[in-house]
Amino acid sequence: MSFDALWNALLPVGREPLTGGYRRYAWGTADLECREWFLDAAGHCGLDVESDGNGNLWAWWGDPSDGDAVVVGSHLDSVPDGGAFDGPLGVVSAFAAIDAARERGLTPSRPIAVVAFSDEEGARFGVACTGSRLLTGVLDADRARSLRDVDGTTMAEAMSAAGHDPSRVGPEADRLARVGCFVELHIEQGRARPVDLGAAQPRSNDPRGLVDLDAAVGIASAIWPHGRWRFDFTGRADHAGTTQLEDRDDPMLGYAAAVLEAREAADRHGALATFGKVRVEPNGVNAIPSRVTAWLDARGPDDERVRALVAELSGLTTRQPGAMPPGALTSRDELAVSEESWTAATEFDLLLRNRLVALLGDVPLLPTGAGHDAGILAAAGVPSAMLFVRNPTGISHSPAEHTERDDCLAGVDALARILEDLARPA
Amino acid sequence: MSFDALWNALLPVGREPLTGGYRRYAWGTADLECREWFLDAAGHCGLDVESDGNGNLWAWWGDPSDGDAVVVGSHLDSVPDGGAFDGPLGVVSAFAAIDAARERGLTPSRPIAVVAFSDEEGARFGVACTGSRLLTGVLDADRARSLRDVDGTTMAEAMSAAGHDPSRVGPEADRLARVGCFVELHIEQGRARPVDLGAAQPRSNDPRGLVDLDAAVGIASAIWPHGRWRFDFTGRADHAGTTQLEDRDDPMLGYAAAVLEAREAADRHGALATFGKVRVEPNGVNAIPSRVTAWLDARGPDDERVRALVAELSGLTTRQPGAMPPGALTSRDELAVSEESWTAATEFDLLLRNRLVALLGDVPLLPTGAGHDAGILAAAGVPSAMLFVRNPTGISHSPAEHTERDDCLAGVDALARILEDLARPA
Repeated sequence: MSFDALWNALLPVGREPLTGGYRRYAWGTADLECREWFLDAAGHCGLDVESDGNGNLWAWWGDPSDGDAVVVGSHLDSVPDGGAFDGPLGVVSAFAAIDAARERGLTPSRPIAVVAFSDEEGARFGVACTGSRLLTGVLDADRARSLRDVDGTTMAEAMSAAGHDPSRVGPEADRLARVGCFVELHIEQGRARPVDLGAAQPRSNDPRGLVDLDAAVGIASAIWPHGRWRFDFTGRADHAGTTQLEDRDDPMLGYAAAVLEAREAADRHGALATFGKVRVEPNGVNAIPSRVTAWLDARGPDDERVRALVAELSGLTTRQPGAMPPGALTSRDELAVSEESWTAATEFDLLLRNRLVALLGDVPLLPTGAGHDAGILAAAGVPSAMLFVRNPTGISHSPAEHTERDDCLAGVDALARILEDLARPA
Repeated sequence: MSFDALWNALLPVGREPLTGGYRRYAWGTADLECREWFLDAAGHCGLDVESDGNGNLWAWWGDPSDGDAVVVGSHLDSVPDGGAFDGPLGVVSAFAAIDAARERGLTPSRPIAVVAFSDEEGARFGVACTGSRLLTGVLDADRARSLRDVDGTTMAEAMSAAGHDPSRVGPEADRLARVGCFVELHIEQGRARPVDLGAAQPRSNDPRGLVDLDAAVGIASAIWPHGRWRFDFTGRADHAGTTQLEDRDDPMLGYAAAVLEAREAADRHGALATFGKVRVEPNGVNAIPSRVTAWLDARGPDDERVRALVAELSGLTTRQPGAMPPGALTSRDELAVSEESWTAATEFDLLLRNRLVALLGDVPLLPTGAGHDAGILAAAGVPSAMLFVRNPTGISHSPAEHTERDDCLAGVDALARILEDLARPA
């Protein structure tokens, strides 16, 4: 089946007419439609599909029990109002690459599979890469089953409602052992500076991203360490119209100071820091909030810089920057910071990476700040690699995310050549 | 019926066990229970109840059609997680004052009524003083009916579900004409400086609030002008883990700068400014927001100061304060400000106020930043006044809102004396 046919069949699923963005959340209606699409695509390619205990879908060319499989794929779910490419491009390209390699006469020496990992974005239950984390055992099955979405539905309940038995959730060592290597193709996100420039301190006019480097495809060097922290700013609810400024204990001021500090600290450390999710209580127009809860997403080139950034923000109360008005944060007790997730830096398998570089020729090596299922598998000891397909603006997690069709086809071709190389008869 | 009995019957209605705060929202379950309580209370006091077309409840002692009635009361609904006193204290005290005046032998020369205005806080549909504004015709009936709550339910639908015919909504000139004067008793909110100090510039150690002035009851001088403005900060959704700082258009930074600026500007103008309600899109932990919408509540001693404050914040983009990081707000287009409501300063009726001062003796005169139904009626030409009952901390719109029982009883006594005075037989 052609790339275009596969792509166009998936395109309308879970698309929000108002925003043009995608809302494909784990075990929801759109996610189930994506899974139907996967079954259809595998059927057209003549592959046998199995759903593992964690909801990851595998489409096999060859006998899985032979082991040492070459696995390609990505995920189908999205962030709220995400783009069409993040995830699906890797799955569509995997099917198209198998078709292309077969048409060019490949008779594989090892099993080949397309995988669609379940719930990579964590948009619904708040934990990213759930499918691959459960498979590899780094996410506890009971914890996963009891995660709740905003409506209070647990993951176990959502799975049951979708016809998936939640008691099957958990590590599957045998299934993981069949995977000889994993190659995830993904849309480029952001415009990172390539790692091989050799400059200790990047200059502002250094080329950034595949678009500057005039390359349709790149290879991942490493995934930046990244984590999520919950910041609870506590104040005292009060009437906005009657409480004098000097009587207020308004946690919104502390939050606002933290947002600006986070940007400044990220810049200083050469890292990334974002407050993208906020919850205000009681969130009334004429009510001084009693509490502002915000989540910090922080990433950087090494663990030390990210840790230093978060430590500075957590200790904000003692820093008294000039920008903060009197009373913004008067005591350390008013800010509680808790780590919700942490993933150390992930280096991809050097042998596999060098093999892909040798095969594809002069392709740039790019680091990425995004977590991926390939990173989870790499951390679990599976030789893994990632291909990036050029994103001219770098914009992702947005309806404006885009990749040119020619670049998509270049990605399919690269992936087909990788399959031919890795599964070449001896 | 005694103050305590009335108070204790109402106390559990709509109380949230977790926070201890009240969630009595217009036309919801708790609001309907409050209305039931009103019917019971009026029954015990031997008063005849009518619900007007806008859902305001009136309990009559005497014949309404005689006109020139003395009306006392307040409202029963609450802000999210509000306190027990804001609103209900005025209604409970009104019933208790009628009982007390009758026991002391009053045979009124004019009709007396207790009123509970509907939907004063506007917590559900976003417009405050809906009941009194509709009654007086300053809020359009069609606009009110089509207001929506967060679930998308219109006010008309909510009324219908509660058994109130929404087609009755609208101005009622005849009913309003029956009101000879309106006295609203209310818990003191905040600790304002009394207006009769005569100091042009209040000093920081001037007494503030009834607690400093050693008075159980005060009288309102005026309601500060106040309004609500919607601030839309527009940016571009993007991946928090991959978008370099220099490629970001993050509206959260502009919002954070505005929060700190609002505090600074309010201090400079001797006014109040609060961002208490925020909505973030898409509100994902790893997503740079595409939009941050926040509501500014601003009030001050005169119209000019409030207008100046809002103008400064609206023009934030051109001010480039040093606190703002590069890129926080790069163009005026990224911030749109729209006025959602504006109420000019309300001076209460001087004749009525002087009569209450003469009657009650040496009571402080206090301004207030809070809007009230008494302010709506005053603006509609009804001679109106307000009594404040001491709030030792000034805290309101919070579960911590409190008034001592002795002060409540002092308020009831003052209100009973006012009824005896205003409805004294010639």
